[in-house]
Amino acid sequence: MPPIARPGGPVVVTGGAGAIGTLLVEALVKRGNEVRIIDNLSSGRRAHLDRLGRPDGWKLVISDLRQDGPWTDEFRGAREVWHLAANPDIRRGTEDPRLDLEHGTIATFHVLEAMRRHDVPRVHFSSSSTVYGMPTIFPTPESYGPLLPESLYGASKLASEGLVSAYASCYGTTSYIFRFANVIGPLMTHGVLFDFFEKLARDPSRLEVLGDGRQAKSYLRTEDCVDAMLFASERTHDRVNFFNLGTGDRISVREIAEKVVRAHGGGARIEYTGGTRGWPGDIPQQDLAIDKISRLGWKARWNSAGAVDLSIEEMRQSISARTR
Amino acid sequence: MPPIARPGGPVVVTGGAGAIGTLLVEALVKRGNEVRIIDNLSSGRRAHLDRLGRPDGWKLVISDLRQDGPWTDEFRGAREVWHLAANPDIRRGTEDPRLDLEHGTIATFHVLEAMRRHDVPRVHFSSSSTVYGMPTIFPTPESYGPLLPESLYGASKLASEGLVSAYASCYGTTSYIFRFANVIGPLMTHGVLFDFFEKLARDPSRLEVLGDGRQAKSYLRTEDCVDAMLFASERTHDRVNFFNLGTGDRISVREIAEKVVRAHGGGARIEYTGGTRGWPGDIPQQDLAIDKISRLGWKARWNSAGAVDLSIEEMRQSISARTR
Repeated sequence: MPPIARPGGPVVVTGGAGAIGTLLVEALVKRGNEVRIIDNLSSGRRAHLDRLGRPDGWKLVISDLRQDGPWTDEFRGAREVWHLAANPDIRRGTEDPRLDLEHGTIATFHVLEAMRRHDVPRVHFSSSSTVYGMPTIFPTPESYGPLLPESLYGASKLASEGLVSAYASCYGTTSYIFRFANVIGPLMTHGVLFDFFEKLARDPSRLEVLGDGRQAKSYLRTEDCVDAMLFASERTHDRVNFFNLGTGDRISVREIAEKVVRAHGGGARIEYTGGTRGWPGDIPQQDLAIDKISRLGWKARWNSAGAVDLSIEEMRQSISARTR
Repeated sequence: MPPIARPGGPVVVTGGAGAIGTLLVEALVKRGNEVRIIDNLSSGRRAHLDRLGRPDGWKLVISDLRQDGPWTDEFRGAREVWHLAANPDIRRGTEDPRLDLEHGTIATFHVLEAMRRHDVPRVHFSSSSTVYGMPTIFPTPESYGPLLPESLYGASKLASEGLVSAYASCYGTTSYIFRFANVIGPLMTHGVLFDFFEKLARDPSRLEVLGDGRQAKSYLRTEDCVDAMLFASERTHDRVNFFNLGTGDRISVREIAEKVVRAHGGGARIEYTGGTRGWPGDIPQQDLAIDKISRLGWKARWNSAGAVDLSIEEMRQSISARTR
């Protein structure tokens, strides 16, 4: 396959050692791109990059985007940026409100400034369904408003969207904003499946589930997420291009809990803490309208149940490999 | 009139020495509130506060919100905050992209953190029509999306809205978000009238107008803006309350230029630089739907033309007083 953007110059991927970033880097390298990964390894892992093989066509720069610094040199001559770096754990942001401001909003600002300094013409930004807050329309389209996020994570995604949009207008950057559903897959270091398996490892007799279990969301496989971004990037060329990325269906936390318990041997009792929300800032109902990306011709390979099943099976295998 | 919020404790007004803030402080003091003004006097002026008379019931703390600091002590025991401080000049933000991030987004974060630390239960935030970017629906309702701001100023207002909304959800703050049309009135240190009079002072024979003059926007008088905020704050009590504030009509830049030239004696030739936008980040067409605040029973005293006429007359008189 040809390089996805105009020829010449490497591609910068921030957060490229993360669960989504690693698969994106893999796809970009396969397409013949030279990739520069910038990651502070706070949730990304160097070991994730093992799957890329020897560093022909890619390099990792361990650096933090909260401050301007030598990492911006990697933007020299770059043809485009994929800005995926962020705090990935929504709940941590409620405990430490500065986290998403710094690793989200301020990091995005520094990335956009580095692009402006080095005349990098295209940016892709990983936003989130959390910008919609508690929507009243399901499935929720990209044109939904008002955007009143419930979490500091969502606030920082909204802030970053605004920055990306303003830079497009003021400095001519071509921009892609992708609002992700819940993304699950291998290499995850947080999230609902990760939590459930951790809890069962501590106490195999019971699984505590935050909320009443009726929270229902779309779960998108990492591979589908990466595929959708590349698909849209190749096919739309407005000044600001923005898409929901999801599966078009959803699955409840209760169903996920039951699947995990079954995969774990079936002995655990599921205990719900009650209440409609899992935690302050949680969005109990999330269902993104995917008409816009679908009209481009893209389709997810896994629906929400399929994405959850595959991810549970991977997690079960990886735990059984570790404990063997 | 009774104090506007629950009794006990002073009211904090950031940016309280600015064009809007001063009138707000005046109204709050008149209603019997003790007011603590925090202003860095970057665009606010100490002289503005002369109209308040001797400091019974108010005090000014000269401080910058970009850093956490002793100014946060003023939040101790406060019953509510009006957060108006920001860079008021949209065009300056394009020249210096860090300006709106620091004086907008980061300042808002510090204000919300100070509120959290001191358990201040209510916040009012001055947002802007610029969060709508270039809307495709006129008049533009509060539920309009997507929110793709064109300026870094707009991006910082959107970022601050997101923070205000997330704090309401995570920490229980009651929040008011007001999206202002263009606000004009006395005490302004920037804006279209200010620019036009400055240009005519330099060269009375010609008035250069950025763009083609067909840009058309709502102009809301400062007094109406303050009145609408107090009106809404007294009457709505959702967790997050958000309102467009405008006049329900608009006026073109061409009409404003002709009014200014007439007020100036009529001799100047108007020259348009051309193009639909005045500058990068400019929103040529702005018309806010005001159904939501109207349904509460609020009505602007001046329409856009009336607001412009009164402000031109004030400016003309103040110039003639200075040059007499």
